[in-house]
Amino acid sequence: MTIIEQIKLKDKTVLNTLKKIAEEEKVSFDEFLRDIVLGKIVVLKNIKSKVKPVAVGKDLRTKVNANIGSSPDYIDLKFELEKLDIAIKAKADTVMDLSTGGNIDHIRRTILQYSTIPVGTVPIYQVVCETLKRRKTIKDISVNHIFEVIEKHAEDGVDFITVHCGVTRKNIEILKKHKRVCGIVSRGGAFLAGWIIKNNKENPLYEHFDRLLKIAKKYNLTLSLGDGLRPGCIADANDEAQIAELKTLAELSKIANKESVQVMIEGPGHMPIDTIEKHVKLEKKLSGGKPFYLLGPLVTDISAGYDHINSAIGAAIAATAGADFICYVTPAEHLRLPDPNDVYLGVIAARIAAHAADIVKRKKYKEDVIDLEMSKARKDLNWKQQEKYVLDKIKFLEERKKILSKTKKVCSMCGSFCAMRESTKIGI
Amino acid sequence: MTIIEQIKLKDKTVLNTLKKIAEEEKVSFDEFLRDIVLGKIVVLKNIKSKVKPVAVGKDLRTKVNANIGSSPDYIDLKFELEKLDIAIKAKADTVMDLSTGGNIDHIRRTILQYSTIPVGTVPIYQVVCETLKRRKTIKDISVNHIFEVIEKHAEDGVDFITVHCGVTRKNIEILKKHKRVCGIVSRGGAFLAGWIIKNNKENPLYEHFDRLLKIAKKYNLTLSLGDGLRPGCIADANDEAQIAELKTLAELSKIANKESVQVMIEGPGHMPIDTIEKHVKLEKKLSGGKPFYLLGPLVTDISAGYDHINSAIGAAIAATAGADFICYVTPAEHLRLPDPNDVYLGVIAARIAAHAADIVKRKKYKEDVIDLEMSKARKDLNWKQQEKYVLDKIKFLEERKKILSKTKKVCSMCGSFCAMRESTKIGI
Repeated sequence: MTIIEQIKLKDKTVLNTLKKIAEEEKVSFDEFLRDIVLGKIVVLKNIKSKVKPVAVGKDLRTKVNANIGSSPDYIDLKFELEKLDIAIKAKADTVMDLSTGGNIDHIRRTILQYSTIPVGTVPIYQVVCETLKRRKTIKDISVNHIFEVIEKHAEDGVDFITVHCGVTRKNIEILKKHKRVCGIVSRGGAFLAGWIIKNNKENPLYEHFDRLLKIAKKYNLTLSLGDGLRPGCIADANDEAQIAELKTLAELSKIANKESVQVMIEGPGHMPIDTIEKHVKLEKKLSGGKPFYLLGPLVTDISAGYDHINSAIGAAIAATAGADFICYVTPAEHLRLPDPNDVYLGVIAARIAAHAADIVKRKKYKEDVIDLEMSKARKDLNWKQQEKYVLDKIKFLEERKKILSKTKKVCSMCGSFCAMRESTKIGI
Repeated sequence: MTIIEQIKLKDKTVLNTLKKIAEEEKVSFDEFLRDIVLGKIVVLKNIKSKVKPVAVGKDLRTKVNANIGSSPDYIDLKFELEKLDIAIKAKADTVMDLSTGGNIDHIRRTILQYSTIPVGTVPIYQVVCETLKRRKTIKDISVNHIFEVIEKHAEDGVDFITVHCGVTRKNIEILKKHKRVCGIVSRGGAFLAGWIIKNNKENPLYEHFDRLLKIAKKYNLTLSLGDGLRPGCIADANDEAQIAELKTLAELSKIANKESVQVMIEGPGHMPIDTIEKHVKLEKKLSGGKPFYLLGPLVTDISAGYDHINSAIGAAIAATAGADFICYVTPAEHLRLPDPNDVYLGVIAARIAAHAADIVKRKKYKEDVIDLEMSKARKDLNWKQQEKYVLDKIKFLEERKKILSKTKKVCSMCGSFCAMRESTKIGI
């Protein structure tokens, strides 16, 4: 049964859990419940999962996801658990296990066992891996195989899955008609497009959407409708295929909501700064306010090695405009599989973006109290107090001591020339 | 003589130099000259300086400044030259020597000797240092001392100076009336306010603005009108004092322009995301389009250790809205004096922000060509070609090789699962 159904049935246990979340988020409980039912908020929590649920959507704190998982080139369960651990330490709200190498079932189950935060997956990856291992091709993937893997993930306790339901025959035709620079940059999107073209059949995740809903219903599995046709560079942003896919996903999100299934919509990718706000608002308008889960967006294509900074710019703008959920981008993006240090930096950068947006969009919930307290402590040159409010206390302490001031209380930036101190001296 | 005067006199040498700049910036030469005369563009270049001039303003590429300089706590000329060197390597457009420790004349002159990019300073720092060294207090600073130091900097070849002319008696009264959390966070602003309050006299840089213009005229010294009353935290942003000071600076900028003196206006600081665009547009409106030189802005107060990421968010939004010149913020901000590594990261983060904005605001000059070429190379899995376009080639090569893929051409993020490759295979 889904949370929406449980709310409708006034299930006491679920209502109590939700009440706590509403309190933590400092939002009205009634509005919170109403928005879950309307599909404007999702609560990530498989009925089989033991994690603390995380709510994503309207009026809530902007959440941050960290992608981890093996690649065919690097298969090491310990490495993945290290990344899980560091993502949680950096205060990611969720993780996604995107493993495509090694024993995928075992990696996922181990991550689910250790994770204290909701876990997402992209089942199509495992389908493709298993198919290729059997020396078959993408074309040979069977519809049943796809749904069996999805059900297995749900049964294991995965809280949300990405399903690229919008890579339809029609949308692929639109994509072909308007030539792109980077084509399809989503792995799931590329594989499904390959399957559709080679078999001359419709996307099973679209055609059998009802089958997907049935599984989602059983486990309160949240569907994250993936943007398999998202733009992979500035030049491709906001093109016909992207918008057509968004429309398809928005329609499907309404069908899911009618069936009381929780659903989010995924967004790009790469976008010029001045188009982000408009795109977020379009998603909200088309979908009736469904949670928008963004990868990036990156605002330039040339910053490989620093794409966490690049995507923090896009994410902050998107979240301010109403995006609810940010998938981090690490400094390793476009270059290699991220290591634990990349995961850490990726989460921190995304959290800065999310918080900067929350200051603005959550004004009525006083999200800026922490900034105010930090600033008071700063003016008082009270470093102990600053530790309490700073985003990353360990970094704060480490960096500060690298060059200490000889003058009491101030820092070595200005030393005895501290403006804060001078200002206090003259009573300002 | 200033560049504006030289343009008016149709000085051939100056016109030839400016023609080259216009070509590099890909803007119309006539419009470029017109905008310099109108004060919408400044060309940073003291007549005594040997650096290649850098133009800042309307329709031009957004420029990035790196602050270096000693503090009372850390005086090491070699360290400062290292920072200069690394700022230039990271492709900062200008540096400012903000030294407040050691032999300030010697440090400045050495930096001027080694710098290949325009150099700015804040002369009031040296005035205060010398005053305190003589065991006197801020109150004892003489007006002549201030102008003597300014003239010395100009004579040495400094290309632009920050002068906090807007910290007037009237504006201090406004500041006092509307209590702030962080008071004054500009060093120059705090010292001048102290002098004004203690002596019950007007700010000499405001009262004797004509004397400032005379020096600026002689050397083509660009005046950067400093925002001594800039907000130092989100809670203080956009308050009465900030706006009052901006108005004062805008008025002074018009007087300077009438006298053919080049002038920029400085901006904050700390600002909530949703107020940045409006503030940039206000500066442009009040000043008649004078170049806006921003420090940050930081969009939250709690990210010490990562304030380069924080300010990249604010800077990208500001530059998109029309800000012309970005002063970097390093990861050491609010914690300690930056070291060479911080300088590097600070410049890179600011350049990402500047470029992301230029893609949008310089569309007619095709600023996005580099992104397009990068994206084509990415789709072709042509790593050699990507090296040509990536922002930081060294980082790009270093990071990529940390985990290489076993599969030819692709990276270890997806390995044989590369979406780019799959997309090409199916002709998309």
